[in-house]
Amino acid sequence: MLLHYKKIIDKELKFFSQKLPPLPIYEPIKYIINLGGKRFRPSLTLLSTDLFCEKPLLSINEAIAIELFHNFTLIHDDIMDHAPLRRNQQSVHNKWNINNAILSGDLLYALVNKLLSTSSSQSPEIHELFQQTAIEVCEGQSLDMEFENKNDISLTDYVKMIQLKTSVLVACALKIGAIIGGADSKDANLLYNYGLNLGTAFQIHDDILDVYPNEDYFGKQVGGDIIEKKKTILLVELLKNSSSEDKKIIYQTLEDKVINGNSKVYKIKEYYKKYNILKLAVQSKDEYYEKAIDCVNQISISEDKKNLIKEFSLALMQRKF
Amino acid sequence: MLLHYKKIIDKELKFFSQKLPPLPIYEPIKYIINLGGKRFRPSLTLLSTDLFCEKPLLSINEAIAIELFHNFTLIHDDIMDHAPLRRNQQSVHNKWNINNAILSGDLLYALVNKLLSTSSSQSPEIHELFQQTAIEVCEGQSLDMEFENKNDISLTDYVKMIQLKTSVLVACALKIGAIIGGADSKDANLLYNYGLNLGTAFQIHDDILDVYPNEDYFGKQVGGDIIEKKKTILLVELLKNSSSEDKKIIYQTLEDKVINGNSKVYKIKEYYKKYNILKLAVQSKDEYYEKAIDCVNQISISEDKKNLIKEFSLALMQRKF
Repeated sequence: MLLHYKKIIDKELKFFSQKLPPLPIYEPIKYIINLGGKRFRPSLTLLSTDLFCEKPLLSINEAIAIELFHNFTLIHDDIMDHAPLRRNQQSVHNKWNINNAILSGDLLYALVNKLLSTSSSQSPEIHELFQQTAIEVCEGQSLDMEFENKNDISLTDYVKMIQLKTSVLVACALKIGAIIGGADSKDANLLYNYGLNLGTAFQIHDDILDVYPNEDYFGKQVGGDIIEKKKTILLVELLKNSSSEDKKIIYQTLEDKVINGNSKVYKIKEYYKKYNILKLAVQSKDEYYEKAIDCVNQISISEDKKNLIKEFSLALMQRKF
Repeated sequence: MLLHYKKIIDKELKFFSQKLPPLPIYEPIKYIINLGGKRFRPSLTLLSTDLFCEKPLLSINEAIAIELFHNFTLIHDDIMDHAPLRRNQQSVHNKWNINNAILSGDLLYALVNKLLSTSSSQSPEIHELFQQTAIEVCEGQSLDMEFENKNDISLTDYVKMIQLKTSVLVACALKIGAIIGGADSKDANLLYNYGLNLGTAFQIHDDILDVYPNEDYFGKQVGGDIIEKKKTILLVELLKNSSSEDKKIIYQTLEDKVINGNSKVYKIKEYYKKYNILKLAVQSKDEYYEKAIDCVNQISISEDKKNLIKEFSLALMQRKF
């Protein structure tokens, strides 16, 4: 249902990319833009503007800025995570090299800022929210890196991390769209909180799907996060709830360099079962999802429009978007 | 003579650094801020505001933003250049690691943008100039990296590269200060061009001092740029002016992996002598310096104020600042 907006975004991104100078340092930027993606963050900006003034194009520059900022973080995150692939293609540092990936990422962020500074709909509030969000996204990535070598992560720490790393940008995309559409600050903040909670539910669901995939996930390594010792809500809950004896074995299993990945996943899944971890994680996910829907219900827009957002929320959670 | 401004900048930077959150990812940022430096870019912003309204503090946020942006580029440049040291201390990626250096650099740039977005003196013109400059600095760094593996660099290419990499930020620092001070666009642009030309003269002089140091440079490796095969104005002029036979030997000398650094420097210096390269480089430097002073003479300010800028220009060129 955001397809209409996605088409606008794709067209605008293509135009943006074609206008870039022919210097080699712009090549990685053109490349990552053209790798595609769901474009759901910028689509939400246009939707959010549309909700309040029915002129979605008013926020096109900010929508593009949000998508490009997201792409900048992908370039740098892929270096930090040593990820060889992005959207099933070579990541930027893999296709070029680390120096090119660092610099083209920096350049992309500068282009984003230039775009924001020349947009007709700019306001100090939008600038500040955008850059505060950028700060938070960096903080989130730093917590994620920190947590890799830390075992005593609380659920609060975990939620804080995924919210900073992922949800705040979704929330920001929605709030900026709302501000540009003329929403009052109550509604703009409700959309922010909707995005924050929905993003959190989405990320928790992502953790769940890694271990308990539905049929659409066929072909993906089940339990990849376990093999990579990633801090997911499942592992955080398991370490919180298991006996000290079991915890010891869990740590040993995660660190085990002898047994293969599938056996590791199998063993950890046995503990998830023993401590009913799936249920706990699903409960968390549902709580955040409900909080998100609660926010939607409080926004001063028509029921039809509320239903539109709710349909999108459901589609997103079911990965049908 | 900019010492008065430097004190203000140092105090403000200390305050900025102390206000940063206690998260680990802020440590590299506090570290690089506290490494010190001449702070001449932000001092020029304050000076420039002072010239037009005698209230230098009006541009304090923008001055700080410019210095922090410069520090951000240093963190990332040091990764790209594999530089172990910065201001005689460990560089950020050396003290922490590459991931921390990438991310804390990104975070620092986001903090700069937040600072700009919340400054009372902000205007679309300032935002746009700042971000356009950020784009150009990235382009300059990319040209510098490109030139490393390229031999046929023209003097125009070389000047373009150093202007983008170094001079535009000096020019931007001055112009933003002028705008905030209330200068008209003619004067603001004159200060921009003054900065652009002075920065270029300074960088050319830097290339010269590497091979022909004055007494203050005692202790530094003479000809470090030759050993690193860096594209300097001397090398660019030499390759432009030498016979094809000599050029062949010059390339061989630069690539020679057997002879030691000092012999390499000695050999190349012989060719500099043969083709009168020092004279050509000094001529270039003087031309840019004179262009800079020409701009100062055209600004609508008192002769006293013009003399102040000229004194600073001379002190900078003599490395007495």
